[in-house]
Amino acid sequence: MKPYVFGVDVGGTAIKLGFFGPEGKLLKKWKIPTRIENSGSHILPDIVSEMEKTLAAANVDWADVEGVGIGIPSPVTEDGIVLRCINLDWGVFSIPERLRKLQPAIQRIRVANDVNAATLGEMKHGGGKGRNSIVMVTLGTGIGGGVIVNGKMVFGRSGAAGEIGHICVNPDETERCRCGHRGCLEQYCSATGLLKMTRRRMAQNPEEETVLRDMTDFTAKDICDAARDGDYVANDMLKRLGRRLGIALSAVAGTVDPDVILIGGGLSSAGDILFDKIITYYRTYAFHAYQDTEFALAKLGNDAGIYGCMEMVYLAAMEEEQEND
Amino acid sequence: MKPYVFGVDVGGTAIKLGFFGPEGKLLKKWKIPTRIENSGSHILPDIVSEMEKTLAAANVDWADVEGVGIGIPSPVTEDGIVLRCINLDWGVFSIPERLRKLQPAIQRIRVANDVNAATLGEMKHGGGKGRNSIVMVTLGTGIGGGVIVNGKMVFGRSGAAGEIGHICVNPDETERCRCGHRGCLEQYCSATGLLKMTRRRMAQNPEEETVLRDMTDFTAKDICDAARDGDYVANDMLKRLGRRLGIALSAVAGTVDPDVILIGGGLSSAGDILFDKIITYYRTYAFHAYQDTEFALAKLGNDAGIYGCMEMVYLAAMEEEQEND
Repeated sequence: MKPYVFGVDVGGTAIKLGFFGPEGKLLKKWKIPTRIENSGSHILPDIVSEMEKTLAAANVDWADVEGVGIGIPSPVTEDGIVLRCINLDWGVFSIPERLRKLQPAIQRIRVANDVNAATLGEMKHGGGKGRNSIVMVTLGTGIGGGVIVNGKMVFGRSGAAGEIGHICVNPDETERCRCGHRGCLEQYCSATGLLKMTRRRMAQNPEEETVLRDMTDFTAKDICDAARDGDYVANDMLKRLGRRLGIALSAVAGTVDPDVILIGGGLSSAGDILFDKIITYYRTYAFHAYQDTEFALAKLGNDAGIYGCMEMVYLAAMEEEQEND
Repeated sequence: MKPYVFGVDVGGTAIKLGFFGPEGKLLKKWKIPTRIENSGSHILPDIVSEMEKTLAAANVDWADVEGVGIGIPSPVTEDGIVLRCINLDWGVFSIPERLRKLQPAIQRIRVANDVNAATLGEMKHGGGKGRNSIVMVTLGTGIGGGVIVNGKMVFGRSGAAGEIGHICVNPDETERCRCGHRGCLEQYCSATGLLKMTRRRMAQNPEEETVLRDMTDFTAKDICDAARDGDYVANDMLKRLGRRLGIALSAVAGTVDPDVILIGGGLSSAGDILFDKIITYYRTYAFHAYQDTEFALAKLGNDAGIYGCMEMVYLAAMEEEQEND
């Protein structure tokens, strides 16, 4: 096992990079903007260039780097084939292949969906520490999900395991989700969805009083704050979110029955006012055998991705060592 | 690896037993009634006595039996702890421990939920042959489910992984499922559920014509036959079943993204008139990345359980051999 690893979390607006040393110690973390132009063709060269600068500054050679772990915001197969990534304007290609062409000295390359990677990060260093089977759901602009079973990330046939945000929870919905379907969980339970649903309700019920009417342009955080201050409409909207999400998570638990369900993403900072509702509805609708599944908040925030990407490389190296033993 | 294995599929009315020889060849299969009386305390002794008679007749010693695989109709942990099994009137106890007390010569004991075991059987010998990640759903009196990821059965924290029948698909349902909750998939998509929903509809719409009215006591099979003969109500009921099941399976696929989804159980013998509807609705509601998941019918019928139970023992033996290599 070589002493250094890079963990790279590629997002739609920024690429977060982590340079890890012996025993997974984070030596440096930084970020660069994601250049989407020209079909995202700058992204991998930018990453390689950043890693090379870092190695030069630290006086470390590629021969001492175990590998590079990369998380991307779309389904990706276990072999690292990305199957169209809208946020990066990427088509279908092999990330390890392209990366090796740019820098043949890179030894091990692991790629995963960003939330799957973050889930691994949380399992090793965050809210899921000590657990072996984890489901994580991140509530942000969209909804992401990650699934780990028996210590291993689940990729799925098309790299789409854990795409919890696009589970259909309302087949009668008339508006479309950005994925093109109607009734996805994301349409109701992401920060964006919460805002949209609240505005829809306020427009449909103009007589209903809420402090949100006094704000010209409120945010998901404002809704959570208003709920905490006792605003009926705001609180009821969080209830509805919690009910939909609780039911959806009980279906996920019916499939893999995890040790713990982690809630992350920007909206999770709302705290108990939302967290308690999700758990209450989960326990109401979940089958008795997994009714008491533990819930926890994700802990690593934006760093979960780079930690998870680093861990993918370590796990792959350890597996290989065991096989060669 | 020893040449013989027993596979034992314990159901609520009958125990199916299989005696397997070298290379997993089925040498003998038979069944005995399940004696539920006295808190199901006869069940394990009956199984041991059957195995002993079989070994005596074949002139085989326990020393030549690799082990016994057992499937039971309830959640069970990977260690073989049953957590209350209503159908067998069992409480909480360790099956391997109790079995070893009855017959200390038994070497390897593996226990799993019956549908999880059957899913493994289908993966090795039936409709899922050659696949590595499988979801199976069985439509019978109830709904069972099994999940295999990367070649390994998923048990889950409380042994309830794959409890697809009790996923909540209608939180507004007023009638209770036999599990005590309201709105479980099983209430609509099992053979029993189909019957109940059809009767409910006929009672609520007395003016609606259907050939089913001419039968004094129709069955789920009659509904499928009537649908095939063009009866509108019967066909529409299968459509509704297919829609609910298709949507539920798309949530399951959003969690583990399997290579193939197998449909089994008595109702699956309805064939294309039902199968096509499930698939159509699945493809309508599933996220694009796993929209084209393959569907297949389970092939082994009632034998899937004993085959899967046998395979659990082989897999455990092979894993141990690899570890010792």
